[in-house]
Amino acid sequence: MGFCRRQLDRLQPLWQHMLEHPFLVEARDGTLDETVFASWLRQDYLFVRAALPFQGALLARAPVRERDAHAVAIHALQEELELFRERARALGIELEDVRPSLVNHAYVQFLLATAHGRSYPEGHTVLYVAEKAYHESWKVVREGLDASHPWWPFVENWSGEAFAAFVRDLEARQDRLAGGAGSALRTEMAELFETTVRYEIAFWEMAYSASGWPGIVRDWTTVEEEAEEIDAEGR
Amino acid sequence: MGFCRRQLDRLQPLWQHMLEHPFLVEARDGTLDETVFASWLRQDYLFVRAALPFQGALLARAPVRERDAHAVAIHALQEELELFRERARALGIELEDVRPSLVNHAYVQFLLATAHGRSYPEGHTVLYVAEKAYHESWKVVREGLDASHPWWPFVENWSGEAFAAFVRDLEARQDRLAGGAGSALRTEMAELFETTVRYEIAFWEMAYSASGWPGIVRDWTTVEEEAEEIDAEGR
Amino acid sequence: MGFCRRQLDRLQPLWQHMLEHPFLVEARDGTLDETVFASWLRQDYLFVRAALPFQGALLARAPVRERDAHAVAIHALQEELELFRERARALGIELEDVRPSLVNHAYVQFLLATAHGRSYPEGHTVLYVAEKAYHESWKVVREGLDASHPWWPFVENWSGEAFAAFVRDLEARQDRLAGGAGSALRTEMAELFETTVRYEIAFWEMAYSASGWPGIVRDWTTVEEEAEEIDAEGR
Amino acid sequence: MGFCRRQLDRLQPLWQHMLEHPFLVEARDGTLDETVFASWLRQDYLFVRAALPFQGALLARAPVRERDAHAVAIHALQEELELFRERARALGIELEDVRPSLVNHAYVQFLLATAHGRSYPEGHTVLYVAEKAYHESWKVVREGLDASHPWWPFVENWSGEAFAAFVRDLEARQDRLAGGAGSALRTEMAELFETTVRYEIAFWEMAYSASGWPGIVRDWTTVEEEAEEIDAEGR
Repeated sequence: MGFCRRQLDRLQPLWQHMLEHPFLVEARDGTLDETVFASWLRQDYLFVRAALPFQGALLARAPVRERDAHAVAIHALQEELELFRERARALGIELEDVRPSLVNHAYVQFLLATAHGRSYPEGHTVLYVAEKAYHESWKVVREGLDASHPWWPFVENWSGEAFAAFVRDLEARQDRLAGGAGSALRTEMAELFETTVRYEIAFWEMAYSASGWPGIVRDWTTVEEEAEEIDAEGR
Repeated sequence: MGFCRRQLDRLQPLWQHMLEHPFLVEARDGTLDETVFASWLRQDYLFVRAALPFQGALLARAPVRERDAHAVAIHALQEELELFRERARALGIELEDVRPSLVNHAYVQFLLATAHGRSYPEGHTVLYVAEKAYHESWKVVREGLDASHPWWPFVENWSGEAFAAFVRDLEARQDRLAGGAGSALRTEMAELFETTVRYEIAFWEMAYSASGWPGIVRDWTTVEEEAEEIDAEGR
Repeated sequence: MGFCRRQLDRLQPLWQHMLEHPFLVEARDGTLDETVFASWLRQDYLFVRAALPFQGALLARAPVRERDAHAVAIHALQEELELFRERARALGIELEDVRPSLVNHAYVQFLLATAHGRSYPEGHTVLYVAEKAYHESWKVVREGLDASHPWWPFVENWSGEAFAAFVRDLEARQDRLAGGAGSALRTEMAELFETTVRYEIAFWEMAYSASGWPGIVRDWTTVEEEAEEIDAEGR
Repeated sequence: MGFCRRQLDRLQPLWQHMLEHPFLVEARDGTLDETVFASWLRQDYLFVRAALPFQGALLARAPVRERDAHAVAIHALQEELELFRERARALGIELEDVRPSLVNHAYVQFLLATAHGRSYPEGHTVLYVAEKAYHESWKVVREGLDASHPWWPFVENWSGEAFAAFVRDLEARQDRLAGGAGSALRTEMAELFETTVRYEIAFWEMAYSASGWPGIVRDWTTVEEEAEEIDAEGR
């Protein structure tokens, strides 16, 4: 049995918990609040934008034969960002001046810190799990959402055949990387697999509950105001 | 006015909010639950342990004249970890097999991603703010806690004169780095300043409320069990 | 005057020295030995292949508005590698099992170490200078080489209008980055500018003199043999 | 047989070639030109200074149980730098305003690029080989040089018992890291082992022949002058 299958079996209850998250279930059933969806869209746009440097950091460490895959993924991310901008316009959602929530910020830091500071097979693990999770999560929504719904382009983007093929390719690479890894490294990869699922759940939870930063109720002076101030003073 | 003073002024309400966190106030007044303190100690041990690679990543990018300061800080962190282990033994607190909470994990990723992926002055900003925040936070506790209290060694460690001098030195370096930075970089540093304060507040909040991972109530199979399984199977 | 113009003025004698290198002059005049050209091609293929992780490392640290440029450059590098493979086939040159010379290996390490360990504007400096140098170097060859010559596709690739526009774009970015930098950072960028020119000259010199590794006359057991040995022993 | 022993056997002719380098043999026999030694000392001071960020980058990626070793090594490097400064004063050698030769610059970039961009076991390989090579190289000099000779403190520093124990410890760690590695990683480690020996030989060769930058005979305007110019103009 390959590494991915084995981990998905081991973490099955956690994975299932993710797929049953109210955000996905309500999106599927057409009962999800539009403002909740908008809040997800605004946060996820920031996340996907940060996936570009993550892919760059992976490419910087990828063995020769894995490099083209990252070059392709970088191109795909640019198209995905365009999808966000197009949908935001269609839905009247503002994408600028959004502060990432703690969970969003944290997940991005996790991607970057892993890609920069850990070995390539470890970084690839986080990439694979994040993409696999998104593929299966949006397949849940696909079960109920109509193709004419304004959210459909996202559903199609992540649950469609092109993305399915992309995830299968990642899975084959992931299994090969794990197959060539020593046991200590494979244990690290198993831990990162689980941590990534935990972040995926936390992300849906954050979007659903519109949570920002723990312990902070209102927003004090923001850095944007500060920046303007600096400009104004010519500092 | 130096960069640090200016930022502390700008973020004064947020900073004050941090210093009034129930964890600190109750620790000062002797009303903090011991299990809450133990939970903080277990999480913070993991955090301080992760500060060692953070210092390494900063040293890797430090200009020549800043390097010795990081070498000294690395030595100080080793002593701080020994303090944690000594106190844990004295208080009967188990330090092994602790899973970092999301906020703890996230804060560590933020340190590492910043040190690895951003410029040295940006990484130094996060270092300075985290140390300054800890210094002032534990000064709050010092106002009320008795020197004979078993938690006192932590209070003394972060609010004492040696640490105060360390923080003053960091502040002078930080002001010099910001003084030499262009305006775009200085705006990034101001943003990282604020983000670090937000993580500090989130950390106290996490310790106080014993929060783990959003959306996950119980713990499924953990990676430690998996590791044993792998050993058992000789994989 | 912009940063690039200023540096090119300052380093004019060194830059001119590069453009008058015998490799370029003889390639232009049709007197360059074919085996010397083949040796350059084999080494440069390895270098361009390593430029892909370099671009990844830059993308990983690029501000939002610089990211698309790196995504485009990554795509261009893939096409450039295809050009090398096509020309190698046409000229009967073997591209596999080539050990990088010290200068080639060193230049690649310089790219990677700068992108990983220094700030983005510093990494971008090395990128700009390397591309600018190649553009102008191959313009020297263009002055004399006939468009029907089998080496022409390389000449066209780096001295043609598409590449000229790419270099102009890099130069505008470089000037903007330097314009926003503080004086300490700008001094570092000036130093990296010069170091990159020195590596460019060393690279032509290495190709022209077919130099390998200083102090090593013949090649002892290579890692490829070792790898086969490991396979054979099942280690 | 452990990884290190196996590689040292495989690369025995190359290793022996290094140990018979004229620099070492003449230093042992008391026939090495003093200006050659001074040139080595000035270049190696720069190299050791750059070893500090290298150790930082390794610490940033080290598993928990390897971290203390790097903290110790960082402290040892600071003492080694003090030895260079003390000897330079005693011998009347100027340490400032030295431009690294290409080989020196390149070797440093190799250390940094490997530590930043490759996995921890790969970075550790370069560290081990560099230290092992220095230990054995200076043992050659020890065979002939008198303990009263002004160069002796360097001989003692690298060929003495304390350094021998340090190298044995590194070797045990290296063997353990290789033992836990998969075969692809182990092949990479074997290749880095050889490359490091090649850089060691190139370094002795550079010091012995006082080589600077290939293809560059005299030094044009240097960055130091430029920096002064910038100051003078108030830019």
